[in-house]
Amino acid sequence: MARHVEPDLPPSLACLKNVDTLLRCPICFDFLSISMMTKCSHNFCSLCIRKFLSYKLQCPVCNMQMTEQDLRNNRLLDDLVANFQAARQELSKAHFESPPISPKT
Amino acid sequence: MARHVEPDLPPSLACLKNVDTLLRCPICFDFLSISMMTKCSHNFCSLCIRKFLSYKLQCPVCNMQMTEQDLRNNRLLDDLVANFQAARQELSKAHFESPPISPKT
Ligand SMILES: [Zn+2]
Ligand SMILES: [Zn+2]
Ligand SMILES: [Zn+2]
Ligand SMILES: [Zn+2]
Repeated sequence: MARHVEPDLPPSLACLKNVDTLLRCPICFDFLSISMMTKCSHNFCSLCIRKFLSYKLQCPVCNMQMTEQDLRNNRLLDDLVANFQAARQELSKAHFESPPISPKT
Repeated sequence: MARHVEPDLPPSLACLKNVDTLLRCPICFDFLSISMMTKCSHNFCSLCIRKFLSYKLQCPVCNMQMTEQDLRNNRLLDDLVANFQAARQELSKAHFESPPISPKT
């Protein structure tokens, strides 16, 4: 669920954009919060998927039929989100404080 | 399973070390390859965990009893490994080519 707005990645960290995108929930687009994985291997915030399942008993991404009992905690994603956010903040700080890095030169 | 040796992260990217560690298999210590998640939320390479389970029907991390049927693909981790490795390579290149960044100054 939305908690705060993340600053954009500086251009020199654009290569981390895919990792950033993968760690987000397909329902709320924020970073995954208490990640739950479906049987079909799709991941959502615990609150987002439970809310969705109270309306429709299927996966919001691939439409596979499912119930709340099929959800499994994906705790590694929670640890990845926390550590990625910390690294991203530290790198952004370092990159904004230093002259821009141009990998092309 | 071991495929190749990764270069160490440059000191300016030390903050990515935790993310790197989390994406590795607790059996082979290489990056997860075809990640499988147990019921107890632990993740291993598909080959590593299947080999382990052929000897002992329990989770190598927490010892919870389990069988191969309890394994679930954790595909997001495979995508994270691929994208993190690409980003890490690009950042390492940029950081080695540029003067070192000292976030303390
Ligand atoms: Zn969400
Ligand atoms: Zn699905
Ligand atoms: Zn392994
Ligand atoms: Zn376990």
